[in-house]
Amino acid sequence: MAAREEFFAGFQKIPYLPSAGPGNVLCFKHYNAEEVLMGRTMEDWLRFSVCYWHSFCGTGADPFGFQTLHRSWNEGTPMESAKKRLRAAFEFFTKLGVKYYTFHDRDMAPEGSTLEESNRNLDEITDLALQLQNKTGVKVLWITCNLFAHPRYMNGAATNPDFHVLAFACAQVKKGLEVAKKLGAENFVFWGGREGFHSIHNTDVAAELKHMANFFKMAVKYKEKIGAKCQFLIEPKPKEPCKHQYDYDAMSVIGFLKHYGLESHFKLNVEPNHTTLAGHSYEHDVVMASVFGMLGSVDSNTGSPDLGWDTDQFPMDIKNTTMVMKTIIEQGGLQPGGLNFDAKVRRESTDLEDLFIAHIGAMDAFARGLRNAVRVIEDGIITSMVKERYSSFRHSLGQKVEDGSATLEDMEAFVKQNGEPSVTSGKQEKYESVFNHYI
Amino acid sequence: MAAREEFFAGFQKIPYLPSAGPGNVLCFKHYNAEEVLMGRTMEDWLRFSVCYWHSFCGTGADPFGFQTLHRSWNEGTPMESAKKRLRAAFEFFTKLGVKYYTFHDRDMAPEGSTLEESNRNLDEITDLALQLQNKTGVKVLWITCNLFAHPRYMNGAATNPDFHVLAFACAQVKKGLEVAKKLGAENFVFWGGREGFHSIHNTDVAAELKHMANFFKMAVKYKEKIGAKCQFLIEPKPKEPCKHQYDYDAMSVIGFLKHYGLESHFKLNVEPNHTTLAGHSYEHDVVMASVFGMLGSVDSNTGSPDLGWDTDQFPMDIKNTTMVMKTIIEQGGLQPGGLNFDAKVRRESTDLEDLFIAHIGAMDAFARGLRNAVRVIEDGIITSMVKERYSSFRHSLGQKVEDGSATLEDMEAFVKQNGEPSVTSGKQEKYESVFNHYI
Amino acid sequence: MAAREEFFAGFQKIPYLPSAGPGNVLCFKHYNAEEVLMGRTMEDWLRFSVCYWHSFCGTGADPFGFQTLHRSWNEGTPMESAKKRLRAAFEFFTKLGVKYYTFHDRDMAPEGSTLEESNRNLDEITDLALQLQNKTGVKVLWITCNLFAHPRYMNGAATNPDFHVLAFACAQVKKGLEVAKKLGAENFVFWGGREGFHSIHNTDVAAELKHMANFFKMAVKYKEKIGAKCQFLIEPKPKEPCKHQYDYDAMSVIGFLKHYGLESHFKLNVEPNHTTLAGHSYEHDVVMASVFGMLGSVDSNTGSPDLGWDTDQFPMDIKNTTMVMKTIIEQGGLQPGGLNFDAKVRRESTDLEDLFIAHIGAMDAFARGLRNAVRVIEDGIITSMVKERYSSFRHSLGQKVEDGSATLEDMEAFVKQNGEPSVTSGKQEKYESVFNHYI
Amino acid sequence: MAAREEFFAGFQKIPYLPSAGPGNVLCFKHYNAEEVLMGRTMEDWLRFSVCYWHSFCGTGADPFGFQTLHRSWNEGTPMESAKKRLRAAFEFFTKLGVKYYTFHDRDMAPEGSTLEESNRNLDEITDLALQLQNKTGVKVLWITCNLFAHPRYMNGAATNPDFHVLAFACAQVKKGLEVAKKLGAENFVFWGGREGFHSIHNTDVAAELKHMANFFKMAVKYKEKIGAKCQFLIEPKPKEPCKHQYDYDAMSVIGFLKHYGLESHFKLNVEPNHTTLAGHSYEHDVVMASVFGMLGSVDSNTGSPDLGWDTDQFPMDIKNTTMVMKTIIEQGGLQPGGLNFDAKVRRESTDLEDLFIAHIGAMDAFARGLRNAVRVIEDGIITSMVKERYSSFRHSLGQKVEDGSATLEDMEAFVKQNGEPSVTSGKQEKYESVFNHYI
Repeated sequence: MAAREEFFAGFQKIPYLPSAGPGNVLCFKHYNAEEVLMGRTMEDWLRFSVCYWHSFCGTGADPFGFQTLHRSWNEGTPMESAKKRLRAAFEFFTKLGVKYYTFHDRDMAPEGSTLEESNRNLDEITDLALQLQNKTGVKVLWITCNLFAHPRYMNGAATNPDFHVLAFACAQVKKGLEVAKKLGAENFVFWGGREGFHSIHNTDVAAELKHMANFFKMAVKYKEKIGAKCQFLIEPKPKEPCKHQYDYDAMSVIGFLKHYGLESHFKLNVEPNHTTLAGHSYEHDVVMASVFGMLGSVDSNTGSPDLGWDTDQFPMDIKNTTMVMKTIIEQGGLQPGGLNFDAKVRRESTDLEDLFIAHIGAMDAFARGLRNAVRVIEDGIITSMVKERYSSFRHSLGQKVEDGSATLEDMEAFVKQNGEPSVTSGKQEKYESVFNHYI
Repeated sequence: MAAREEFFAGFQKIPYLPSAGPGNVLCFKHYNAEEVLMGRTMEDWLRFSVCYWHSFCGTGADPFGFQTLHRSWNEGTPMESAKKRLRAAFEFFTKLGVKYYTFHDRDMAPEGSTLEESNRNLDEITDLALQLQNKTGVKVLWITCNLFAHPRYMNGAATNPDFHVLAFACAQVKKGLEVAKKLGAENFVFWGGREGFHSIHNTDVAAELKHMANFFKMAVKYKEKIGAKCQFLIEPKPKEPCKHQYDYDAMSVIGFLKHYGLESHFKLNVEPNHTTLAGHSYEHDVVMASVFGMLGSVDSNTGSPDLGWDTDQFPMDIKNTTMVMKTIIEQGGLQPGGLNFDAKVRRESTDLEDLFIAHIGAMDAFARGLRNAVRVIEDGIITSMVKERYSSFRHSLGQKVEDGSATLEDMEAFVKQNGEPSVTSGKQEKYESVFNHYI
Repeated sequence: MAAREEFFAGFQKIPYLPSAGPGNVLCFKHYNAEEVLMGRTMEDWLRFSVCYWHSFCGTGADPFGFQTLHRSWNEGTPMESAKKRLRAAFEFFTKLGVKYYTFHDRDMAPEGSTLEESNRNLDEITDLALQLQNKTGVKVLWITCNLFAHPRYMNGAATNPDFHVLAFACAQVKKGLEVAKKLGAENFVFWGGREGFHSIHNTDVAAELKHMANFFKMAVKYKEKIGAKCQFLIEPKPKEPCKHQYDYDAMSVIGFLKHYGLESHFKLNVEPNHTTLAGHSYEHDVVMASVFGMLGSVDSNTGSPDLGWDTDQFPMDIKNTTMVMKTIIEQGGLQPGGLNFDAKVRRESTDLEDLFIAHIGAMDAFARGLRNAVRVIEDGIITSMVKERYSSFRHSLGQKVEDGSATLEDMEAFVKQNGEPSVTSGKQEKYESVFNHYI
Repeated sequence: MAAREEFFAGFQKIPYLPSAGPGNVLCFKHYNAEEVLMGRTMEDWLRFSVCYWHSFCGTGADPFGFQTLHRSWNEGTPMESAKKRLRAAFEFFTKLGVKYYTFHDRDMAPEGSTLEESNRNLDEITDLALQLQNKTGVKVLWITCNLFAHPRYMNGAATNPDFHVLAFACAQVKKGLEVAKKLGAENFVFWGGREGFHSIHNTDVAAELKHMANFFKMAVKYKEKIGAKCQFLIEPKPKEPCKHQYDYDAMSVIGFLKHYGLESHFKLNVEPNHTTLAGHSYEHDVVMASVFGMLGSVDSNTGSPDLGWDTDQFPMDIKNTTMVMKTIIEQGGLQPGGLNFDAKVRRESTDLEDLFIAHIGAMDAFARGLRNAVRVIEDGIITSMVKERYSSFRHSLGQKVEDGSATLEDMEAFVKQNGEPSVTSGKQEKYESVFNHYI
């Protein structure tokens, strides 16, 4: 039998060469998979994942321009091309040295003219995926169903005014859960790109939210029925394509989940580019989700703060990666989540090597972030400054506030006895200067 | 006894003159308090309130410039001036024809050098307020405690890292609740202007959120203990003065309240200028709060969408006021909340008459909004278009989704039987055109 | 000969029915083409134009979803479809009652595999366009060349780092100018969608700006050479698709043009959706361009202030249309420019009638804006308030400031003699209230 | 004679201790004034300047809270305090090791009740300033007149509708220029904080722009008359306090200057916090001003990209400082401009040491930026990648485009001969990865 086609000919497994010069962008200078930091390998802290849609299905088309990226795996019939794409992807994962990948049902296998045909396509391609997973050891970080690209979903999937469309979304998620189980996906993501509205005039928000909640409840029930183990994740995004999306940001989703009694079944997949589109700082939703015990996974990408749409760039800012990794370490890691590169090479980055360069640059950026965060935490200077700052809550009436037993009368009595509090510097610039030491 | 000083000499009670010309800005052309629409007077639908801080304490100072507004009531010692200010305010309320007002403890009476002195000041001035309320029939829409202006609160009040400061905030709120009871305030607002952070580096978010929740719990308990009837309201704002405020927007507050089991004790006081600062459209938080049954009151003002800070302008956009009033009518009114003009004349609007002109313009804008919304609802065209749009959920399996009894398997079976859903136009431009008919 | 295919069967010429009810969205209630206001017909003040790309080439695809709009004219080979599209468009123009249209070279005729083939395609289709223009009286408001969609332009056209690409753009513009002359286009637009950068790291800004200036100079020279009469217009946009576009906003373009000595050859085509993306208020660039004598035409659309990308919605806000029309009347009209609906029906607005409804709604919105602006100007109240506000510049030293002959010494002497100026209210709320009278 | 009061007791001259630990924030770890890089000392490349208003006049008041910063120099009568403040400032400059400072006329000396008294105050305090300058060698980087804080300027200074106010502004600038000459200020800045509008309704934009231009012309004439050598600088800002400011951003100012023939007399003082408020990336206006030969000086501070107002934080982001310094080196330095810390310690940073910590942190951030930029430039990898990218313009017809002699016909002929250009990767991720090597 003929040798398999090689899609990334000329590329070897990317090595770790910490002393390589600036012009050598096809090696890791910071990411050393097996190196142990704070008792865990870098690979284990970072749990990198490559996304299928941008890196293997992306064409470079944008709203103002046509396809620029031409990939050799996009040839033949849809099913032939799906198989080539899968082989190309596993070749890339392996050469890059990444152990996880993520995909939508519809970028893995082409949609057929009926649900049944779509499901058969998915069965056939995921059989191959399972083979390749077993052969390479690469695993599925998460699966998601594409409930936004097909015209049927233009007015929403779970929140569509037409029940028939919601039914289709449900059928698609049922199959998605079966595939998740089959492939051992560690998580299952819901991104509600069209769950929201373009115009409040034509929208019954209360009805739509209830439908969305019931949709999630059906998914929970079916997951339990079939014994799938994947963690459910909701991915917040404030807008785009909708004018307003219900899963606006971390706190919106947490409020929604708690309102409908769904909070024990879901965590969040936070994407910083979505966070900044919601008007927050880069690390905000990662931090808030973590504080509420809801941080499940991170779509590690970036936007530009001066742009108002999702650019899904590869994350390259060391300060940002340090902040994210500090939060992740402090919550004890992301398992079963990971850092998924929901990022695409620019449509102008048309060389095949750009796909490697982009991932390597981002992995090194996160490896530097991890190394920095470890130093911040191991040095303990910032941690102890913060601890000291809140120390008054560890004594007497402060402690009663902590445990919920204090009353307004107690507090007034304290003030009558102790008078005006002193004013204490917040020392923001000192914190920033100390933090900069580690960057 | 000498006649009382008149602060707005030359101004009479503002009349309703529907056919006055454009140059006459000292009469109502749309607001006719006693006129009945949909079974209720305009006054009752709108429940207008004048705010004390901007309109009677405002000086026109901004971060780049000094005081421009010189008011005759700001003369004498702080306590003398506090009384003059109160008389001026009630003269204004009466001449304007507004039945509610709102205030912070510290704009009503000056802060003393101790809590006790501050409380005595407040007692003395609120005695006069009660007299004036009884004499004029003007009532308190809501009271709030200023927990942000004094330097002690620079790092937060309920979320201050120093327990002592939290104690002071509690003591202040205790007194505020007592005053609320004394004056019959219909609501009590918490605006957490410094409850958030400037730098994530020096902040223990988890600790601060817990302290804030426990602070609210203490307030709930004390309110119940003294038998105050005021509805508790939280006012969301995303940022300013803090870089990030925990009460970011309606959904953030709802999430917070539900997480800490506080949702039955609080509703929201939504300020559209804060809503737009959070990246939403003008009416967004009014609509979302209403959908979640949490819309308590509205700080009816506006910002400029091209500005990133709180300008607290008088609301003058008829489309916006129509949208807000439509939501309010649909939820059956705002009682015990109202439309509070948390708005300030521009610092360049230095004439005394500008205070009347601004309020009149805004009241007319909301009166037009009310009249428009009534026509929208009474015509029923938009309502029936929306009802039709969701009609598939009133039959068979759609009904089972509504009542939560459907399963993914049911839904898949439906699709297998019925195939691909048809694509239905959302008709946004038609809705917009019909809506424009009423503007 | 067989009757021509009808693309908008069932639609008649849209009538003016001022007293039609809210549900009737297929008639004009405000736009009455022949009605004369301030000495000119409404048609003449408004000079409405339909754009070809959105309304006849648009598919409803967005970055997250596939085609939703299926038009009967998109059938057959590219050239057959181009002809059908043209006939459909003229049928639409005629039924809608609009006298102008606008197009890109590449939406009029398909791009061939060589420049020569593309040009032949364009010749053939524009022959038909000329026939239809002559038959219907519909004219070209402006033509533009699509220098952004083809992959060759991914790194820019006039600012591409590769000279060869710039050469291609020049060749395309040369042909575009010839077509403009042939069809009697009244204007010729340059929109530099890819003239900017995604990353400052790989960009030589100085070189790119110079190339762009020289590109414009070549176009000026050729236009003059062939005796084309069209007014050149540059359309500012701050970003999207680029991270940063050189033609950021009105003032950026004016600065660029003056720097390179091009200001006498160009005016601006201002698109309010681009203006708001640049952080300005809706009317800002219309006003600024007009003040600098550079307002040539308006792409009358709108975005949502809470969205950070170009949504190209149909303009429906009466306050905005009033402001724009006031500026246009004050500068004596827009000729040879017009109000071009660079707007697209939402991808969810899939009914054919939505195309009519959207245009009618927007035309009525501008007709109301025109009527309002005429009343504002004819009443003269606001105008005389403003005139009075600046009256001190009509006397003595004020007049010398106006004519440029005053000196700092004169001014100091004036202050030494006259002391402190008085503070005069800006009366913003009064202006807003008076303005609201007309809305 | 008694020893002078010491305002910063316990602080010594800040040393350079490159190997100090993270907790030591009272030394430089990167800024080594005398160290030579690329032929110039660090001090000379960076030309750091401390600003007077934030660091010596700032009180910590914000729109929502009172003074938090209590400085010992703010005691006594206004004139006594002005002198103490000056001595404190020079003690700080000297201990910090910075050679330049900047100030507004009104923060140096208190405004009197007449222009004459204000001028006398200024004379007296600047006599002392001159003494201290001579004694310490500290110099004035730039002076500016405060034309925005006094109520007379509430509607603008040069653009005030009242000629009398403009006259006052002129008189103030006349004196400011005399002071600039007396103190040897190297630059003179105009920041038009109130030169713009809050409402387009009450504004005659054309008149205001002309008045502003004539105001600048008077200043140019007087500067020349008295032989002052200072470089005139305009500082762009898009908004705040005004809704819209005419000096919106670098390109707006360049357009204005060229329109009124003022471009040879002015350069720009770019403040990155203003740049980001205008919707650009941090380095954008620095780069654009430099490209147009108009970069005069930099107000080196930062905002937060998620905030919509001017926070004037100390710059701490190494990527940003690297980008700015790369541009400055490439244009050969900033002389006679410099890096002025128009930055304020947070109002919560109430310790006196915070003033040192903040400046040291920012100076080190810029020193790291300088060191990084030098390595980028000396390595030459990025530079040569860019040069190669544009190499096609160095040959034949490309060269004719450069020199302006090419025509559309030439370009078309080239395409007809050479066909379709090839598509070349922009390699953004490679540039980012190489750049990250230096951060």
